[in-house]
Amino acid sequence: MKFTCHKNELAQAIQLVSKAIANKPQTPILSGIYMEATNNQVELHATDNEMGIISIIPSEVEQEGKLVLSGRYMQEVIRRLPGETVTISQEIDENISKIQSAASNFTLLSMPANDFPTVKRLEDGIRFKIQDNVLRDIIKKTVFACSTDEARPVFTGCQMEINGETLKMAATNTHRLSVKKEVIANLSGDLHIIIPAKILNELLRALNSDMPVEVDVCCSSNQASFQFENVVLMSRLIEGQFPNYDSVIPKNFATTVTLDTEDFLAAVDRVSLISRSADYNIIRLEFGGNQVHISSNSPDIGKADEIVAASIDGPAVNIAFNAKYVTDVLKNIDSKNFRFLLNQSLQAAAVREEDNPTFVYIVTPVRTQN
Amino acid sequence: MKFTCHKNELAQAIQLVSKAIANKPQTPILSGIYMEATNNQVELHATDNEMGIISIIPSEVEQEGKLVLSGRYMQEVIRRLPGETVTISQEIDENISKIQSAASNFTLLSMPANDFPTVKRLEDGIRFKIQDNVLRDIIKKTVFACSTDEARPVFTGCQMEINGETLKMAATNTHRLSVKKEVIANLSGDLHIIIPAKILNELLRALNSDMPVEVDVCCSSNQASFQFENVVLMSRLIEGQFPNYDSVIPKNFATTVTLDTEDFLAAVDRVSLISRSADYNIIRLEFGGNQVHISSNSPDIGKADEIVAASIDGPAVNIAFNAKYVTDVLKNIDSKNFRFLLNQSLQAAAVREEDNPTFVYIVTPVRTQN
Repeated sequence: MKFTCHKNELAQAIQLVSKAIANKPQTPILSGIYMEATNNQVELHATDNEMGIISIIPSEVEQEGKLVLSGRYMQEVIRRLPGETVTISQEIDENISKIQSAASNFTLLSMPANDFPTVKRLEDGIRFKIQDNVLRDIIKKTVFACSTDEARPVFTGCQMEINGETLKMAATNTHRLSVKKEVIANLSGDLHIIIPAKILNELLRALNSDMPVEVDVCCSSNQASFQFENVVLMSRLIEGQFPNYDSVIPKNFATTVTLDTEDFLAAVDRVSLISRSADYNIIRLEFGGNQVHISSNSPDIGKADEIVAASIDGPAVNIAFNAKYVTDVLKNIDSKNFRFLLNQSLQAAAVREEDNPTFVYIVTPVRTQN
Repeated sequence: MKFTCHKNELAQAIQLVSKAIANKPQTPILSGIYMEATNNQVELHATDNEMGIISIIPSEVEQEGKLVLSGRYMQEVIRRLPGETVTISQEIDENISKIQSAASNFTLLSMPANDFPTVKRLEDGIRFKIQDNVLRDIIKKTVFACSTDEARPVFTGCQMEINGETLKMAATNTHRLSVKKEVIANLSGDLHIIIPAKILNELLRALNSDMPVEVDVCCSSNQASFQFENVVLMSRLIEGQFPNYDSVIPKNFATTVTLDTEDFLAAVDRVSLISRSADYNIIRLEFGGNQVHISSNSPDIGKADEIVAASIDGPAVNIAFNAKYVTDVLKNIDSKNFRFLLNQSLQAAAVREEDNPTFVYIVTPVRTQN
């Protein structure tokens, strides 16, 4: 096989598919990037057997074929090459490949291409199209709430629910819950699947076009795929039963607080400097009058407190949270103001955007002394 | 004590002096930053008992005094403060200090200021003034060649020699040697001292003014200080005998090669990708005709080779080096072209700037098979 392509396009494709290579690949071949040259293009594949990424770039193909090269060396070598184009070819000895660009020549040992578990596109399942910015927003507002504890797999992914025209995404680590829904034109079906946070985070990074892009989503009972432009991201789904979270979303709140998102986030971030090194990173919030008093306290370091202006409708409330559970959601809110919805000190609170009922975040308070 | 100053000036001063705080301070007080408010200024001190840094900022001092606060928390807190100014004050209980900025209040436990080993300015020694850009260049072209092996302390610093009006700096790790000299107006004296690489690297970072700055250098038999604008960097010197390196600088070279600095550096960097993971990172250079052929080889990865145009005066030479010893020096050379000076394959080679005889770098080749 032999093909020539633009160095920068190849470097970008390698960078993208490399995200699917595990830090410690299960088998040596999974440390490689599979390249297949056909017609006027090259397909790059990488996978860790859980997720897989395909990227397709235009190429001048002199001889069709396929080869597998070390992902690590491909990344290092290609981006440093001196020329604008790169030629990659296989020698008569199939274990040896050549990379050539301007006066630079690399001869790398390659791996047997037939052994590579290429990423298979999904044939069957529920299919729909969604605008990149809508999909980004749904993922961004939920995926941060996942757990990273692999011992409880269902919490390491987001549940995606399709119910008629409504697409809903939910994530929880049992201490907090984030739910976002959107109505998608021409969507229909009934599906509940749990998509790993890992592929959703990669998708967020990959959906970085400056121009509107339509994403083709396909979901089967055990896989999901996202396809746009010349990229396909695939993942196995997480098996198991996602908790029925509707019951933990309070129906009513006694107190509604409206706050400036940026000011409140900055204040919580500062105050939590004092509590951050402790186990639970606890900040206290005292809502009352027309302000919120944020404070934290550590016997070894000292204390911090800050006042932020607030518009409060309802009884005064004192409540404490893990600061990270507050800052995480505020970093993903886009509205200038947001609403804190509260009942009593030990009852779950909610965070909502100011004028957008499609998003809700529920957070459990912590019990503190006095 | 109580003073008010600009937040950004204080944040910068904290960032600078924090470089003198050890990762694992010997005693708790050495994790702190000492602040002394007098007249219209605040002096900040930090030290690890080897090096010390003082930074002075203008300040509105309401009450003179001194206090010591955790360097880590100072850094984190000050830069996040909401206001343009910060007020720092000591409570009646001397163990408690307050930091206040806009609506933000921090109460931090402070350490006993009288226990802090403040950084003492040098009273006696050889003193001279040097322009910041000249000093930067002398340091930049030598300090990279130091060893990091603490078992042999003399190689972890640069020898600074004053001999009449000539200032000379030399560094070696025994496999390579870098020497730079300058004539400094009004310099006089006779001194050989070894300055730790650590303080020289901090000095390089701190000498970042956009405007010309004069640096006051003072050297005693066991300390050196560098003072400019409102900053003082001090360090103990390294004891021991620096090797007599003049004997390892060859008097004559049979072959002189002139190369484009940037092109050659990029090519060596690429080719060494193949050898980098091996113990010695060996690249082979074949100088002959009007080119140099750079190559490397690893049985597990593959091989790389590249041709770079060269102007060669003298017999052809094949020689091999640790690639890092070549790239390190080229990254610190400013001239568009540089000279590689060679004798035979196993004899030391030199690197020089094209039109600047004040700098020389000597590198020992490695013996390779065939």
